[in-house]
Amino acid sequence: MPLLERVVLACKAAGLSDFLVVTGYKPKPMRSFLARLARKRSVDIDVVENPDWEKGNGTSLLACCRKLTEPFVLVMGDHLFEPELLAGLLRVDSEDDSCFLAIDRRTERVFDLRGATKVASRSGCITAIGKDLESYNGIDTGVFLLTPAIFQALAKAQAKGGYGLSDGIAELAAEGRMQAYDIGERFWLDVDTPRSLREAKRHLARQVDKPSEDGFIARYLNRPLSIRLSLLLAHTPVTPNTITLISFTIALLGAWLFTRQGYLPVLFAGVLIQGSSIIDGCDGEIARLKALGSRFGAFFDTLLDRYADLAIATGITYGFWLTHPEFWVWLAGIGALSGFLLTSYAKKEYQLRFQKPPPLSFLPRLAKRDLRLFVIFLGAVVGQPFFAMLGVGVISHLAVFWILVRGRRN
Amino acid sequence: MPLLERVVLACKAAGLSDFLVVTGYKPKPMRSFLARLARKRSVDIDVVENPDWEKGNGTSLLACCRKLTEPFVLVMGDHLFEPELLAGLLRVDSEDDSCFLAIDRRTERVFDLRGATKVASRSGCITAIGKDLESYNGIDTGVFLLTPAIFQALAKAQAKGGYGLSDGIAELAAEGRMQAYDIGERFWLDVDTPRSLREAKRHLARQVDKPSEDGFIARYLNRPLSIRLSLLLAHTPVTPNTITLISFTIALLGAWLFTRQGYLPVLFAGVLIQGSSIIDGCDGEIARLKALGSRFGAFFDTLLDRYADLAIATGITYGFWLTHPEFWVWLAGIGALSGFLLTSYAKKEYQLRFQKPPPLSFLPRLAKRDLRLFVIFLGAVVGQPFFAMLGVGVISHLAVFWILVRGRRN
Repeated sequence: MPLLERVVLACKAAGLSDFLVVTGYKPKPMRSFLARLARKRSVDIDVVENPDWEKGNGTSLLACCRKLTEPFVLVMGDHLFEPELLAGLLRVDSEDDSCFLAIDRRTERVFDLRGATKVASRSGCITAIGKDLESYNGIDTGVFLLTPAIFQALAKAQAKGGYGLSDGIAELAAEGRMQAYDIGERFWLDVDTPRSLREAKRHLARQVDKPSEDGFIARYLNRPLSIRLSLLLAHTPVTPNTITLISFTIALLGAWLFTRQGYLPVLFAGVLIQGSSIIDGCDGEIARLKALGSRFGAFFDTLLDRYADLAIATGITYGFWLTHPEFWVWLAGIGALSGFLLTSYAKKEYQLRFQKPPPLSFLPRLAKRDLRLFVIFLGAVVGQPFFAMLGVGVISHLAVFWILVRGRRN
Repeated sequence: MPLLERVVLACKAAGLSDFLVVTGYKPKPMRSFLARLARKRSVDIDVVENPDWEKGNGTSLLACCRKLTEPFVLVMGDHLFEPELLAGLLRVDSEDDSCFLAIDRRTERVFDLRGATKVASRSGCITAIGKDLESYNGIDTGVFLLTPAIFQALAKAQAKGGYGLSDGIAELAAEGRMQAYDIGERFWLDVDTPRSLREAKRHLARQVDKPSEDGFIARYLNRPLSIRLSLLLAHTPVTPNTITLISFTIALLGAWLFTRQGYLPVLFAGVLIQGSSIIDGCDGEIARLKALGSRFGAFFDTLLDRYADLAIATGITYGFWLTHPEFWVWLAGIGALSGFLLTSYAKKEYQLRFQKPPPLSFLPRLAKRDLRLFVIFLGAVVGQPFFAMLGVGVISHLAVFWILVRGRRN
């Protein structure tokens, strides 16, 4: 996903929907890209071409002067930031028509300090700004809340030969009209070097993680692998729902292989369902990476997981019954598979009845899908998937009982 | 449940928690009853004894004059009303210290018009009140919002020989200080004759119904039977959770009988599970009748329903397999039982993801538990419970698919 799309999404998440993009280099392909982006993300994007873009980014903002007659937000096309940073800035209640620059006080921790624009401020007012400032107490994050007053300031700066945005800001600061907004611990990153691009990717990968909801195996085995896979898949046009279907198909294949005789097919079946379990994490990750998440996607994934569990348990039971043709095998299989379905059910029901997340204590965590499939995989490795399944089946019913007990305590 | 307990519950539901009850006849047993009631329903109940109670109900209110120094609500111990009636009266924003009487404008439809107290009012002000009023435009519902001014009015009325509450109200009305509050279409009922007691029971029985959520069979077969049963059970101390357990046990018994050979055990098994389905409605009904509903009770009932379905499907499958020992019997049984569990699951998941009630269109309604158990009962009657179960199993999976499609449309 292009950086600019992420910037637009962050603005949208902060509540903005009308955009004005200033183009410089290769304006034509940019125009068609922006038209597609507007449609895809349901926002309005107007375009202003700045033929003088090479002179400095002050000329780009000045090119908008006729279109911007009210206070507006200015962001950089290559600066990532979390939506809450901008939302916080928008909540600033300014009495006069002050302009604001969001600054980062964590000067030592800023990613690329050398390339960053430094800011000096005193009691909330910016006193100096520039890349080579020697004394400073903040870093320019590239997120501004401005009034049309900036255009006069830019024109004034250009008359003195200063074509950068900072030159215009410095003019406003000199008049005491430029205020600093402290972003606190919010994330932002200027992505303009290969190194900062790598940092941006690392940050995204961390964002994609869902440690709070993950079980033991998901957290330490599946998630690290699925995130790597997702970062690769993110370069392809594959959608989260397609990944859901792929993971489901692999699980079905594994379920079928469990019905074949011999160690090798069973081992391979175990590998397939553990693979399916890992890939099952990718749909959500891709959705978060590409901001393609949908409630239907999550719904679809959850339902197919239940059908996959059903198929796997049935396959394992049938496979075991072929060599042990006794009725208790089926009863035990039904016991295990109903345990898988009913823990999931009990958690949903708990959430609906008590309007709070289901208990995540030891037993319910032990009955989660990641561990369930991993134990079956281990069972397959040692040639005993059936008994491994029965074990997690018993744990699943115990977890249902535990969820019931927790419900009683509420 | 005593009428007084229902009155206290209605007041509590309208937001009140401090009560003052005036006793007359047999004050001692009343005191211990009220102490138990206060504990049971977590409210404060203070008691005032009125030795002159036989003179008229005005003396009972006057007996409270030292304890009531701020505006208060006055209700009758034998008048049922829905909480929203009182809540609406409490929302009246009175500028001066007016007193209010909640009146019913549906004078023709009032249950016991002859015994009722009539009220005449003009532009919101009560002008006359009394049982034998010839010209009136409203009925006294027995729900008041009063200020301590009523005590002077009562004393004044008593000096003239009027010991009824209405006499005091008439005094306030004469001073233009008594206003009428129109209850609109809200329910209330004065329960002081055997006829009105029967009407109260009819009203309760209607309240207990849940037509919006019920399936076809629940609505036209199970519910009419279970309500009758609940009205009987309401006279016993049996709790909703006990009924849940009884219904579950009967279902387990039915499941076990399905594994016996011969027509009679199977028929009896069918009768048992249909009986269990009917009794399954009673827990909620008793909970609503006795105001004993709890989120845990609903949670417990729903979970046990799933386990009952699981047991029934397993019993039927095992019973059929005994005479048809082939593996497809188990596969088909697993197919059916997973359909039962997964429609329930899909509905919960739908509700959680889309934050709205699950679709109640034809297919999901067809896959509801009432119809499922009824079809299996019919199957048992004709000696084919297994194939009846497979039929509803297929419908259940189709319903899951339909819920998925509806999710996609959201």
